[in-house]
Amino acid sequence: VSAAAAYVSVSRLRVAPERCAELVSAFQQRAHLVDEFDGFVALEVWESDREPGEIWMVSRWRDRQAFTRYMRSQAHDVSHQRIDAELRAAIKLERLEHMRGFDVVAR
Amino acid sequence: VSAAAAYVSVSRLRVAPERCAELVSAFQQRAHLVDEFDGFVALEVWESDREPGEIWMVSRWRDRQAFTRYMRSQAHDVSHQRIDAELRAAIKLERLEHMRGFDVVAR
Repeated sequence: VSAAAAYVSVSRLRVAPERCAELVSAFQQRAHLVDEFDGFVALEVWESDREPGEIWMVSRWRDRQAFTRYMRSQAHDVSHQRIDAELRAAIKLERLEHMRGFDVVAR
Repeated sequence: VSAAAAYVSVSRLRVAPERCAELVSAFQQRAHLVDEFDGFVALEVWESDREPGEIWMVSRWRDRQAFTRYMRSQAHDVSHQRIDAELRAAIKLERLEHMRGFDVVAR
Protein backbone atom coordinates (compact mmCIF):
# COMPACT_ATOMS: atom_id res chain seq x y z
CA VAL A 1 0.00 0.00 0.00
CA SER A 2 1.35 3.40 -0.86
CA ALA A 3 -0.03 6.90 -0.84
CA ALA A 4 0.37 6.84 -4.63
CA ALA A 5 -2.64 4.53 -4.90
CA ALA A 6 -4.97 7.50 -5.01
CA TYR A 7 -7.82 5.94 -6.95
CA VAL A 8 -9.62 2.73 -6.12
CA SER A 9 -12.19 0.89 -8.21
CA VAL A 10 -14.34 -1.68 -6.41
CA SER A 11 -16.46 -4.08 -8.46
CA ARG A 12 -18.87 -5.94 -6.22
CA LEU A 13 -19.66 -9.21 -7.93
CA ARG A 14 -21.87 -12.13 -7.12
CA VAL A 15 -21.61 -15.71 -8.33
CA ALA A 16 -22.93 -19.01 -7.10
CA PRO A 17 -20.80 -19.81 -4.03
CA GLU A 18 -19.46 -23.00 -5.58
CA ARG A 19 -18.00 -20.97 -8.46
CA CYS A 20 -15.90 -18.61 -6.35
CA ALA A 21 -12.67 -20.54 -6.85
CA GLU A 22 -13.18 -20.52 -10.60
CA LEU A 23 -13.75 -16.76 -10.60
CA VAL A 24 -10.61 -16.12 -8.57
CA SER A 25 -8.63 -18.22 -10.99
CA ALA A 26 -10.04 -16.17 -13.89
CA PHE A 27 -8.85 -12.97 -12.19
CA GLN A 28 -5.39 -14.41 -11.76
CA GLN A 29 -5.18 -14.83 -15.53
CA ARG A 30 -6.51 -11.35 -16.06
CA ALA A 31 -4.00 -9.75 -13.75
CA HIS A 32 -1.12 -10.46 -16.07
CA LEU A 33 -2.45 -8.03 -18.63
CA VAL A 34 -3.29 -5.16 -16.32
CA ASP A 35 -0.07 -5.21 -14.35
CA GLU A 36 2.03 -3.42 -16.96
CA PHE A 37 -0.54 -0.75 -17.64
CA ASP A 38 0.59 2.83 -16.93
CA GLY A 39 -0.77 4.01 -13.59
CA PHE A 40 -1.78 0.55 -12.35
CA VAL A 41 -0.81 0.01 -8.71
CA ALA A 42 -2.41 -3.22 -7.48
CA LEU A 43 -5.26 -5.67 -7.93
CA GLU A 44 -6.83 -7.62 -5.11
CA VAL A 45 -9.73 -10.01 -4.86
CA TRP A 46 -11.70 -10.01 -1.62
CA GLU A 47 -14.26 -12.64 -0.71
CA SER A 48 -17.01 -11.88 1.77
CA ASP A 49 -16.72 -13.73 5.04
CA ARG A 50 -20.46 -13.58 5.55
CA GLU A 51 -22.10 -13.55 2.15
CA PRO A 52 -21.09 -16.67 0.21
CA GLY A 53 -20.59 -15.84 -3.46
CA GLU A 54 -19.92 -12.14 -2.90
CA ILE A 55 -16.55 -11.18 -4.35
CA TRP A 56 -14.99 -7.74 -4.65
CA MET A 57 -12.42 -6.96 -7.28
CA VAL A 58 -10.40 -4.06 -5.89
CA SER A 59 -8.00 -2.30 -8.27
CA ARG A 60 -5.79 0.62 -7.38
CA TRP A 61 -4.59 3.32 -9.69
CA ARG A 62 -2.30 6.33 -9.58
CA ASP A 63 -5.25 8.54 -10.47
CA ARG A 64 -8.66 8.50 -12.06
CA GLN A 65 -7.25 9.21 -15.51
CA ALA A 66 -5.11 6.07 -15.46
CA PHE A 67 -8.14 3.97 -14.54
CA THR A 68 -10.27 5.54 -17.27
CA ARG A 69 -7.55 4.97 -19.86
CA TYR A 70 -7.33 1.31 -18.87
CA MET A 71 -11.10 0.82 -19.06
CA ARG A 72 -11.03 2.10 -22.66
CA SER A 73 -7.96 0.08 -23.64
CA GLN A 74 -7.54 -3.02 -25.71
CA ALA A 75 -5.83 -4.66 -22.73
CA HIS A 76 -9.11 -4.40 -20.82
CA ASP A 77 -11.10 -5.89 -23.69
CA VAL A 78 -8.68 -8.77 -24.08
CA SER A 79 -8.63 -9.51 -20.35
CA HIS A 80 -12.42 -9.66 -20.28
CA GLN A 81 -12.50 -11.95 -23.27
CA ARG A 82 -10.13 -14.32 -21.48
CA ILE A 83 -12.81 -15.10 -18.94
CA ASP A 84 -14.77 -18.11 -20.08
CA ALA A 85 -18.04 -16.94 -21.67
CA GLU A 86 -20.16 -19.27 -19.60
CA LEU A 87 -18.54 -18.08 -16.36
CA ARG A 88 -18.83 -14.46 -17.47
CA ALA A 89 -22.57 -14.92 -17.96
CA ALA A 90 -22.84 -16.35 -14.43
CA ILE A 91 -21.23 -13.27 -12.80
CA LYS A 92 -23.56 -10.54 -11.66
CA LEU A 93 -22.07 -7.06 -11.20
CA GLU A 94 -24.01 -5.75 -8.22
CA ARG A 95 -22.29 -2.44 -7.84
CA LEU A 96 -19.32 -0.53 -9.12
CA GLU A 97 -17.79 1.97 -6.72
CA HIS A 98 -15.09 4.52 -7.30
CA MET A 99 -13.23 5.77 -4.29
CA ARG A 100 -10.53 8.30 -3.68
CA GLY A 101 -8.06 6.81 -1.24
CA PHE A 102 -6.03 8.91 1.15
CA ASP A 103 -4.60 8.79 4.62
CA VAL A 104 -2.82 5.47 4.35
CA VAL A 105 -1.27 4.10 7.51
CA ALA A 106 0.82 0.95 7.30
CA ARG A 107 3.13 -0.79 9.74
CA VAL B 1 -0.10 -4.44 0.01
CA SER B 2 1.14 -7.84 0.98
CA ALA B 3 -0.34 -11.31 0.93
CA ALA B 4 -0.12 -11.24 4.72
CA ALA B 5 -3.07 -8.85 4.83
CA ALA B 6 -5.52 -11.73 4.79
CA TYR B 7 -8.41 -10.10 6.58
CA VAL B 8 -10.07 -6.84 5.65
CA SER B 9 -12.69 -4.93 7.61
CA VAL B 10 -14.67 -2.30 5.71
CA SER B 11 -16.83 0.16 7.65
CA ARG B 12 -19.06 2.10 5.29
CA LEU B 13 -19.84 5.38 6.94
CA ARG B 14 -21.91 8.38 6.03
CA VAL B 15 -21.61 11.93 7.26
CA ALA B 16 -22.76 15.27 5.98
CA PRO B 17 -20.44 16.00 3.03
CA GLU B 18 -19.08 19.16 4.65
CA ARG B 19 -17.84 17.08 7.60
CA CYS B 20 -15.70 14.66 5.59
CA ALA B 21 -12.45 16.49 6.28
CA GLU B 22 -13.18 16.48 10.00
CA LEU B 23 -13.85 12.73 9.96
CA VAL B 24 -10.63 12.00 8.09
CA SER B 25 -8.73 14.03 10.62
CA ALA B 26 -10.35 12.01 13.43
CA PHE B 27 -9.17 8.78 11.78
CA GLN B 28 -5.66 10.13 11.56
CA GLN B 29 -5.66 10.51 15.35
CA ARG B 30 -7.13 7.08 15.78
CA ALA B 31 -4.52 5.42 13.60
CA HIS B 32 -1.78 6.11 16.08
CA LEU B 33 -3.29 3.70 18.57
CA VAL B 34 -4.09 0.86 16.20
CA ASP B 35 -0.78 0.83 14.40
CA GLU B 36 1.15 -1.02 17.10
CA PHE B 37 -1.53 -3.63 17.66
CA ASP B 38 -0.46 -7.24 17.02
CA GLY B 39 -1.70 -8.37 13.61
CA PHE B 40 -2.51 -4.88 12.32
CA VAL B 41 -1.35 -4.38 8.73
CA ALA B 42 -2.79 -1.12 7.42
CA LEU B 43 -5.58 1.42 7.69
CA GLU B 44 -6.94 3.40 4.80
CA VAL B 45 -9.74 5.88 4.40
CA TRP B 46 -11.52 5.95 1.07
CA GLU B 47 -13.95 8.64 0.04
CA SER B 48 -16.59 7.96 -2.59
CA ASP B 49 -16.08 9.80 -5.85
CA ARG B 50 -19.80 9.78 -6.55
CA GLU B 51 -21.61 9.81 -3.24
CA PRO B 52 -20.61 12.88 -1.24
CA GLY B 53 -20.32 12.03 2.44
CA GLU B 54 -19.75 8.32 1.92
CA ILE B 55 -16.48 7.25 3.55
CA TRP B 56 -15.04 3.77 3.92
CA MET B 57 -12.64 2.92 6.70
CA VAL B 58 -10.64 -0.04 5.41
CA SER B 59 -8.41 -1.85 7.90
CA ARG B 60 -6.25 -4.85 7.12
CA TRP B 61 -5.25 -7.58 9.50
CA ARG B 62 -3.06 -10.65 9.51
CA ASP B 63 -6.11 -12.77 10.24
CA ARG B 64 -9.61 -12.63 11.64
CA GLN B 65 -8.41 -13.38 15.17
CA ALA B 66 -6.18 -10.31 15.24
CA PHE B 67 -9.09 -8.13 14.16
CA THR B 68 -11.40 -9.64 16.78
CA ARG B 69 -8.81 -9.14 19.51
CA TYR B 70 -8.45 -5.50 18.53
CA MET B 71 -12.19 -4.90 18.53
CA ARG B 72 -12.37 -6.16 22.12
CA SER B 73 -9.28 -4.24 23.24
CA GLN B 74 -8.87 -1.17 25.35
CA ALA B 75 -6.96 0.44 22.47
CA HIS B 76 -10.14 0.27 20.38
CA ASP B 77 -12.24 1.81 23.16
CA VAL B 78 -9.76 4.61 23.67
CA SER B 79 -9.49 5.37 19.96
CA HIS B 80 -13.26 5.60 19.69
CA GLN B 81 -13.45 7.90 22.67
CA ARG B 82 -10.93 10.17 21.03
CA ILE B 83 -13.42 11.04 18.34
CA ASP B 84 -15.36 14.10 19.38
CA ALA B 85 -18.75 13.02 20.77
CA GLU B 86 -20.68 15.43 18.60
CA LEU B 87 -18.92 14.21 15.45
CA ARG B 88 -19.38 10.58 16.53
CA ALA B 89 -23.11 11.17 16.83
CA ALA B 90 -23.15 12.60 13.28
CA ILE B 91 -21.56 9.49 11.74
CA LYS B 92 -23.91 6.82 10.47
CA LEU B 93 -22.50 3.31 10.10
CA GLU B 94 -24.29 2.06 7.01
CA ARG B 95 -22.66 -1.31 6.74
CA LEU B 96 -19.80 -3.30 8.16
CA GLU B 97 -18.22 -5.85 5.85
CA HIS B 98 -15.64 -8.49 6.55
CA MET B 99 -13.67 -9.79 3.66
CA ARG B 100 -11.00 -12.38 3.19
CA GLY B 101 -8.36 -10.99 0.88
CA PHE B 102 -6.32 -13.14 -1.42
CA ASP B 103 -4.67 -13.01 -4.80
CA VAL B 104 -2.81 -9.76 -4.44
CA VAL B 105 -1.05 -8.46 -7.52
CA ALA B 106 1.11 -5.38 -7.20
CA ARG B 107 3.62 -3.74 -9.52
